[in-house]
Amino acid sequence: MHNSASTSSLGPGGLDLRHTFFTPIPGTAPPSSTKRHTKITVVGVGNVGMAIAQTILTQDLADELVLIDAKEDKLRGEMLDLQHAAAFLPRTKINASLDYDATANSDLCIVTAGARQNSGESRLNLLQRNVALFRHIVPPLAEYSPDCMIMVVSNPVDVLTYAAWKLSGFPPNRVIGSGTNLDSSRFRFLIADHLQVNAQDVQAYIVGEHGDSSVALWSSISVGGVPILSFLERQQIPYEKKTLENIHKEVVQSAYEVIRLKGYTSWAIGYSVASLARTLLRDQRKIHPVSVLANGLYGIQGGDVFLSLPAQLGSNGVLGVTNVHLTDDETQQLRDSAKTILEVQSQLGL
Amino acid sequence: MHNSASTSSLGPGGLDLRHTFFTPIPGTAPPSSTKRHTKITVVGVGNVGMAIAQTILTQDLADELVLIDAKEDKLRGEMLDLQHAAAFLPRTKINASLDYDATANSDLCIVTAGARQNSGESRLNLLQRNVALFRHIVPPLAEYSPDCMIMVVSNPVDVLTYAAWKLSGFPPNRVIGSGTNLDSSRFRFLIADHLQVNAQDVQAYIVGEHGDSSVALWSSISVGGVPILSFLERQQIPYEKKTLENIHKEVVQSAYEVIRLKGYTSWAIGYSVASLARTLLRDQRKIHPVSVLANGLYGIQGGDVFLSLPAQLGSNGVLGVTNVHLTDDETQQLRDSAKTILEVQSQLGL
Amino acid sequence: MHNSASTSSLGPGGLDLRHTFFTPIPGTAPPSSTKRHTKITVVGVGNVGMAIAQTILTQDLADELVLIDAKEDKLRGEMLDLQHAAAFLPRTKINASLDYDATANSDLCIVTAGARQNSGESRLNLLQRNVALFRHIVPPLAEYSPDCMIMVVSNPVDVLTYAAWKLSGFPPNRVIGSGTNLDSSRFRFLIADHLQVNAQDVQAYIVGEHGDSSVALWSSISVGGVPILSFLERQQIPYEKKTLENIHKEVVQSAYEVIRLKGYTSWAIGYSVASLARTLLRDQRKIHPVSVLANGLYGIQGGDVFLSLPAQLGSNGVLGVTNVHLTDDETQQLRDSAKTILEVQSQLGL
Amino acid sequence: MHNSASTSSLGPGGLDLRHTFFTPIPGTAPPSSTKRHTKITVVGVGNVGMAIAQTILTQDLADELVLIDAKEDKLRGEMLDLQHAAAFLPRTKINASLDYDATANSDLCIVTAGARQNSGESRLNLLQRNVALFRHIVPPLAEYSPDCMIMVVSNPVDVLTYAAWKLSGFPPNRVIGSGTNLDSSRFRFLIADHLQVNAQDVQAYIVGEHGDSSVALWSSISVGGVPILSFLERQQIPYEKKTLENIHKEVVQSAYEVIRLKGYTSWAIGYSVASLARTLLRDQRKIHPVSVLANGLYGIQGGDVFLSLPAQLGSNGVLGVTNVHLTDDETQQLRDSAKTILEVQSQLGL
Repeated sequence: MHNSASTSSLGPGGLDLRHTFFTPIPGTAPPSSTKRHTKITVVGVGNVGMAIAQTILTQDLADELVLIDAKEDKLRGEMLDLQHAAAFLPRTKINASLDYDATANSDLCIVTAGARQNSGESRLNLLQRNVALFRHIVPPLAEYSPDCMIMVVSNPVDVLTYAAWKLSGFPPNRVIGSGTNLDSSRFRFLIADHLQVNAQDVQAYIVGEHGDSSVALWSSISVGGVPILSFLERQQIPYEKKTLENIHKEVVQSAYEVIRLKGYTSWAIGYSVASLARTLLRDQRKIHPVSVLANGLYGIQGGDVFLSLPAQLGSNGVLGVTNVHLTDDETQQLRDSAKTILEVQSQLGL
Repeated sequence: MHNSASTSSLGPGGLDLRHTFFTPIPGTAPPSSTKRHTKITVVGVGNVGMAIAQTILTQDLADELVLIDAKEDKLRGEMLDLQHAAAFLPRTKINASLDYDATANSDLCIVTAGARQNSGESRLNLLQRNVALFRHIVPPLAEYSPDCMIMVVSNPVDVLTYAAWKLSGFPPNRVIGSGTNLDSSRFRFLIADHLQVNAQDVQAYIVGEHGDSSVALWSSISVGGVPILSFLERQQIPYEKKTLENIHKEVVQSAYEVIRLKGYTSWAIGYSVASLARTLLRDQRKIHPVSVLANGLYGIQGGDVFLSLPAQLGSNGVLGVTNVHLTDDETQQLRDSAKTILEVQSQLGL
Repeated sequence: MHNSASTSSLGPGGLDLRHTFFTPIPGTAPPSSTKRHTKITVVGVGNVGMAIAQTILTQDLADELVLIDAKEDKLRGEMLDLQHAAAFLPRTKINASLDYDATANSDLCIVTAGARQNSGESRLNLLQRNVALFRHIVPPLAEYSPDCMIMVVSNPVDVLTYAAWKLSGFPPNRVIGSGTNLDSSRFRFLIADHLQVNAQDVQAYIVGEHGDSSVALWSSISVGGVPILSFLERQQIPYEKKTLENIHKEVVQSAYEVIRLKGYTSWAIGYSVASLARTLLRDQRKIHPVSVLANGLYGIQGGDVFLSLPAQLGSNGVLGVTNVHLTDDETQQLRDSAKTILEVQSQLGL
Repeated sequence: MHNSASTSSLGPGGLDLRHTFFTPIPGTAPPSSTKRHTKITVVGVGNVGMAIAQTILTQDLADELVLIDAKEDKLRGEMLDLQHAAAFLPRTKINASLDYDATANSDLCIVTAGARQNSGESRLNLLQRNVALFRHIVPPLAEYSPDCMIMVVSNPVDVLTYAAWKLSGFPPNRVIGSGTNLDSSRFRFLIADHLQVNAQDVQAYIVGEHGDSSVALWSSISVGGVPILSFLERQQIPYEKKTLENIHKEVVQSAYEVIRLKGYTSWAIGYSVASLARTLLRDQRKIHPVSVLANGLYGIQGGDVFLSLPAQLGSNGVLGVTNVHLTDDETQQLRDSAKTILEVQSQLGL
């Protein structure tokens, strides 16, 4: 299935149009072996994986896109559905395969595969099943694309990014979790919506563990370059800590709300990961809150742990972590998150 | 639900940031009432409707996007999922509503809603149920946006476009069915894939009824401006009619195949309809094979009937139909299609 | 000249292809008179005007672009040169005219026209000649497009924006000078270049009078949401005021340097104004430092004066001015700028 | 000059912000040496070279752009002017250099440099001076980027593309002249303008020598896939050969007209070459009429000669030439062009 030409039936009739339609010019040399193009692999063609794949395609971020999944019918259906749009898009090779050899020489591998929680199953048990799944996914990705970057989207994203790092044998700058990039986007939307400004003018980070224990960095929120908290102070506008906490709570709950309402999240995570892919592959050196190896930073101790921090990303993956100011309270929350994640990790046998 | 600001909770704490953060300059006048922006309504938030909505958003085709559906939870979930991507996209108002007043002054209304076939249900019965559904959808769209264009995507698209035309009371140039635009794209993909050319360099139309009885216009296929059939003749390359028929058959079956494999089609129809929206709203005057009122054209007789012909589209909808050359055989197939559709229509009581 | 079709000579042979090539469908209604498209006028086709026009075209911001100039040959040459690119661009009507009736119903009029300084001529004398020029430009623009926004790019931009406001009779929110938007971009480039970050992650404003007396807002510079000055303090990194002043000096001189090296500036101002056009026409509500009516803001007194402040822009022009914090020193500089501009204005007899 | 960071003066004060602002994560590995990005060199920063450079930048086709010219001031001025737009564009490295080492490892080198005709100078003499110029340009390009493609834009383009091929020692598929790509665009604009269609729906080629003796392929013009000549025949619409010839004449003269009116051409050639760059670098496999090594094709004999034919382009340069049908008359014109070019070439001593 991984040859995109396999769908064509012009051939059987003995019609080799290509070679009569085009004549090579005299002296044509074959392509140099050093020619490379941008190749992205997406593992998992569920709602999240496909929203990412389609957004990457629409935004023209890759010359070749490979889909990997274990469900053959679904996989082939999604490949064909994307291929049928060829006339509306720049030319991108779209392949799909059950086998990882099709992923060879990818620049970026995005892992969205994950098991679903069974009724009554503990979170730890689910996690162990996902780690078992990653044992089948990550080593072949690393083998076929030894220079690639790996982006983990599957949840719980921080622990699974750690797992992907251990299983890949990669340097940590090339293994990244989508982390709180989307939480931060939701945060920026809520602030922008209230102020009636463009969300792109809002700088605001949620860091730490993706999910319930994430940390909103109130002290560094700014709108059009104006820090909000010191603005309020100067204007002598009183604000209650509770109000701010409610906004953060709303961000945390908004993922649950979308899942409750439509059954899953897809579009926003698709745009979020496509945005990360663009920064990484085009070496944009932008700052995104994503899950990175964090021990030693912000006083985080106790072992190797991934959690989200504002990181500058480029073609070598994580270029550095911003030394953003945290209040004592924020620092403590971050360290608590790290500790919780480390305890979970210790039970995984990685 | 149709106020996008309703999700915000910055307000409760008594914090009216907007008015302290920004000061109007002296003498500011309110917006002129003649100011207009581009507004698109999508009716139906199933897989097709959402793929269209998301592609429209990514391609920045509208200033305002309104989603309409009868399922409140699903509708709100899809709206929130798109809104959460605000930080990654140009600022577009995204609303959702159960009520049609939210669609007022749309430039383009895209109807994707449709009933599903019940087990054992006849096609005619299904169609009658869909027409009944359209009686609740089309009149309020036409009432709230009397100058809009209506694009019908629901199937069977030709008869339902006729229904939308009758129910809207609109001039026929403002009611269009997505028709064989996607079939033609699949056709172009298959030819391009075989010749290893860019699908955008392939001109090829499938016209007539969307579906099994569609007509492939072999005589007008060209690649990079070179007509394929006369090219083959001049090169004395023999080709069998059967080979060509197989390609057409593959196009017809490819929709069924995607449905069999993944359960529905979504991405390609999303790109296809977004492409039509762009031509219509930006007055691009491009030629697309879409379902238009066709009686009197190509010798089609017997009454008002919609089927796909290569039509030039712009901000006034259908600007004209191309006088493409049809062989006698192709003309006959087209007239047969028209006759079949007319017979079905006569049973609908419109 | 202002009919883009005037260049065609297919007609003379009596070949009315259009009407045989396309057949209208039965019952086609003419376009509704309320249909509007986005129309931009650029006055002045020198290096600045054309860089703006071409960037607007590449970025697909308008459905119709009108060029106005008094030099007929140059004007027609520029129009044809842009039209010849039609096959590479979305379809945009490109017209050119000596007469202002071609500008009717523009959404945005961008004025780049200006006299050149004669050898030995005083700045005041040059300014008076430019105001005289504006008396021929602004009233007809306002007459033919009473609802448009006017963007002044000609220098000295602050005083000429005031002149355009007076001559148009428009409310002040619809008259904007490109001001320090480009100075701020240069400032962001220099900071980003040093830190090796993406300039889009740098928030930094230069405000006040465009040119030598502009004010750099050091206290509100942030990178990825991290305020630089307080970051340096916390890290106990000493910095000398002189270093910061040198960067600002470099920004001020960079315009002079480009003019000295290549004779004029064009590309950066082209991108800068296209970026403003996008925010205005697509109602993006982004914050840009541009020249706006500023009396009463930041304690500026003494009469109607335009200078650059961080303003939120949208389809109604200036939506508000950000209450950014200024140090006492910065506030004083701003008031001094205002005073200087007011003194110049008082000599213009407007 | 070729370090883009050289403009910054944040450093002198001893402020190494970069390393305090960002902390690398533990275990960060340096970039793999196989990492590549897309690099384009433009030789010559006149009106044509800069229109190409700016369009490439706006359309985000390269990760790195290098400008080369012998005039140091002009070169640095153009570099700075583009760099100042950083905040409005995706992050692209923009360098400029007098030395060719800055061009190392380019994917595409675009040569726009050329001498101007002196008063009373013969065309042959001008050509010889240009060939002498190419002896200083092409060998270092080929040496520093042995795997690159070379695109020649300087005129007379066909002979100079031959010169570039000889001087580079490259296989012919990697040396291409912009040729009649722009003539064809002007042709498509004129036809589209008359028919009021989108120029992107018009397929029409001008081939052969760029300039007065170019050949319009009337028999292969189609609009929306409908061949115009056979359409006219079937509709029994009489047309005079003279009418068609007038359109071609208008195309040929339109370049002269723009030069007469504004002094040079820039925008359309900028878009035209950016379009070629996109097809080449993103492996789009589109068909463009460009100048390629043509001996042996269409019965062209007598030696190595470059002229424009509809060629399929991709990441390996010229992938093939389309076997478009020519009338006997068209074939003869093409051979006459080839003969003329060969005679000129024989006098160059290459």
